[in-house]
Amino acid sequence: MGHVGRQTIIFEKQPVILETYSTVGPKEGQGPMGGCFHEVLEDELLGEKTWEKAEGMMIKRTVQGLLNKSGKKPEDVDYILCGDLENQINSTQMAIKDFNIPFFGLYGACSTMGESMSLGAILIGSGYAKHVITGASSHNCTAEKQFRYPMEYGGQRPLTQQWTVTGSGYVLLGESGAGPKIHSITTGKVVDFETKDVFNMGAVMAPAAADTILAHLKETNQKPEDYDAIITGDLGQCGTDILLDLTAKLGTDISKVHQDCGLLIFDNEAQDTHSGGSGCGCSASVFAGHFYKALKDKKLKKVLLVPTGALMSLCSTQQGENITGIAHAVSICAE
Amino acid sequence: MGHVGRQTIIFEKQPVILETYSTVGPKEGQGPMGGCFHEVLEDELLGEKTWEKAEGMMIKRTVQGLLNKSGKKPEDVDYILCGDLENQINSTQMAIKDFNIPFFGLYGACSTMGESMSLGAILIGSGYAKHVITGASSHNCTAEKQFRYPMEYGGQRPLTQQWTVTGSGYVLLGESGAGPKIHSITTGKVVDFETKDVFNMGAVMAPAAADTILAHLKETNQKPEDYDAIITGDLGQCGTDILLDLTAKLGTDISKVHQDCGLLIFDNEAQDTHSGGSGCGCSASVFAGHFYKALKDKKLKKVLLVPTGALMSLCSTQQGENITGIAHAVSICAE
Repeated sequence: MGHVGRQTIIFEKQPVILETYSTVGPKEGQGPMGGCFHEVLEDELLGEKTWEKAEGMMIKRTVQGLLNKSGKKPEDVDYILCGDLENQINSTQMAIKDFNIPFFGLYGACSTMGESMSLGAILIGSGYAKHVITGASSHNCTAEKQFRYPMEYGGQRPLTQQWTVTGSGYVLLGESGAGPKIHSITTGKVVDFETKDVFNMGAVMAPAAADTILAHLKETNQKPEDYDAIITGDLGQCGTDILLDLTAKLGTDISKVHQDCGLLIFDNEAQDTHSGGSGCGCSASVFAGHFYKALKDKKLKKVLLVPTGALMSLCSTQQGENITGIAHAVSICAE
Repeated sequence: MGHVGRQTIIFEKQPVILETYSTVGPKEGQGPMGGCFHEVLEDELLGEKTWEKAEGMMIKRTVQGLLNKSGKKPEDVDYILCGDLENQINSTQMAIKDFNIPFFGLYGACSTMGESMSLGAILIGSGYAKHVITGASSHNCTAEKQFRYPMEYGGQRPLTQQWTVTGSGYVLLGESGAGPKIHSITTGKVVDFETKDVFNMGAVMAPAAADTILAHLKETNQKPEDYDAIITGDLGQCGTDILLDLTAKLGTDISKVHQDCGLLIFDNEAQDTHSGGSGCGCSASVFAGHFYKALKDKKLKKVLLVPTGALMSLCSTQQGENITGIAHAVSICAE
C-alpha cells in the first residue's frame, strides 16, 4: 500500500468516482459511441465568435452538467484539476473562472485526463480533500489550427494522422459514496523514441503507453488478464499496432484486453478519420461517457485507463525537435 | 489540521524543503540579487541554436545542480512537478526527459512555483512520496517572442511593462531531514478583473494575490504580522501598488511585511526594467536563491510565498479576451 515500485501508488482509502459527464461535438455524436455521451453539441461553434470560446463553453457545460448530475454546488468541491491542448490551456482557464473553485492547471498533452485523475486521487486518498473535479478537453478546430494547418487551408491528411476529438470529459471524485473506485495510479515518465512526424502521433505515444502499462503490471504484480480492459487514450490504429507489437516483444501480450478510445470513438472508414480519434478530450469523453457506465453496471469489473500524450508544440516542431510521449495509468474497479 | 476553510491545507506532517537550486541569466546576475543565485549563465543562448533549447538547458542544469547539491540521484526522487511559460511547456518537457523521473506537467503561468510546491507538499504530506522535486522556469527571449513581439523588432516597452526573468528555481521536498518546513498551502482561484493590457501584468495579478493572501490569513487565523515576509511573485511596482491599496481597502494592511520578487531581482532604474521582473522563473529563482537561505540562516522565521500568474495566451489576447490572474500561497517556517 502507498507508494510501490518506482511509479505506482496503491490507495489504502480508495477514491470513489461519484459521477461523470461528457460533452462531444457533432462528428463524435455521429460515431459508434454517439449514444453514450451525456451531451452532443449541435455544432463546433456553439454560437460563439471563436473556436477557443466554443471550447471554453463546452468545458463550462461539462462541469455544470457534472455538478447538476451529482447534485453538487461549486462550493462543495475542494479542488478542480484540468487542462486542454491549447497554448497556456487557454479555454480551460476561461471556463474555470466562473466556478470559483481552487484550481490547479495541468498540461499533459493528451494524457491530461490520466494526470488529472491521478492528482485528484492523491488529494482524496490523502484525506486532504472530500470532493475533487478532474477533467480534460480538446476541440478539433482549436487544436488543428494550432498544431498543424489553418482550418481554411483544408490540407490533405496522411493516413497515419488522427482526428482531434471535439470533446470534454469530467469526473467527480469523492472520499465515500457509491461508484467505481480508483485502486492505484502509475505515473508516466517522458519517453523519447526520436519521432518527429506530427502526422503520426500514435507512433509517439505507443512507446510511452507500453512503458507505463508494463511498469503498472510489474509494480502491482498483475497480469494483463487481471483486467477486463486496458484502455489507451488515443493511439489510433497505427499506435495500437505499435503498442501491441512492443509489449509482445517485451514479453507481455496485452492484445486480448486492449482497447483504444481513439479507435472506439469514430468509424474510421465511414467517418474518414484515418488512424482514429485523438486529443485529450478523446479518452476523457469515452471514459466519462462509456467506460464509467460499464463499470457502474458491472459489465466491466476492472479496467486500466491509460491516457497517452504527445509532448510537442508548434515551436518545437518547426525547430525540428523530437516529439516525446507520456502516459499515466489509473486502475479502476467496479464497486 | 488537514483541509481548513475553502482553500487551505495545514500539514500535520510538514514537508521539509531539503535543498534548492537557482540558475539565472546574465542580466539577473548583474541585479541586486546577483550574489544569491547558485549559477549565473554566461549568456542567454548557452551555445544552443534556439532560445527554447537554451531554456531547456537551463532547467537541466538547475535540476542537476539540485541533485548534486543534495547528494541525490534521479532514482531517489519519486516525482517531479514543474512547468514554464512556453506553449505546451515545451522547454520543461525537453529538459525533464533525461532524468527519467515520474513527471506531472503543470501550467499556472507565473504562479507555477506556488502550484508545484503545493502539489509537491501534498505528495509528501500524505506520505505517498518521500522525495519530490518541484520547480518553474522562464526565459526572457522565449517568453517575449511568444507573448508580445519578435525579439528582433525591438519594440518600445511601456513603463507599466515588466522584464521577463531568465531564471529557473527548483526545490527538493522531503518527508524528513533538516530544513525549512511547509506549514500550509492556500490554493488560488481564477480571478478576473477584466484587464486586457498585456503590458500591465501587475494589474492582472494583484487582485489574485490579494484574494489568496486574504483567504490564507483568514483561514489560518493569522495576521500579516505573524509573517516576517509576505512575498509575492512578480507584481512589479504597478502591481505592488495595487496590491497594497486593495488589501488596505479590504481592511488588512500588509505593507509592513510585503516584498515582491519582481522588485527585488532588478534595479529598475539602472537596469531599465521599468515596473520590475516577471515570469515564473522570477519567484522560483528568488525563493530558491535568496529566501531559502534567509530561512535556513533563521534571518527570517516565517514567510508566505505567493507566486502570481497572469493567465493569457497570444491567441486570447488577439481575440480580445480578458487576462485573468491566479496566485497560490505556500507558508514556510524556519526549522
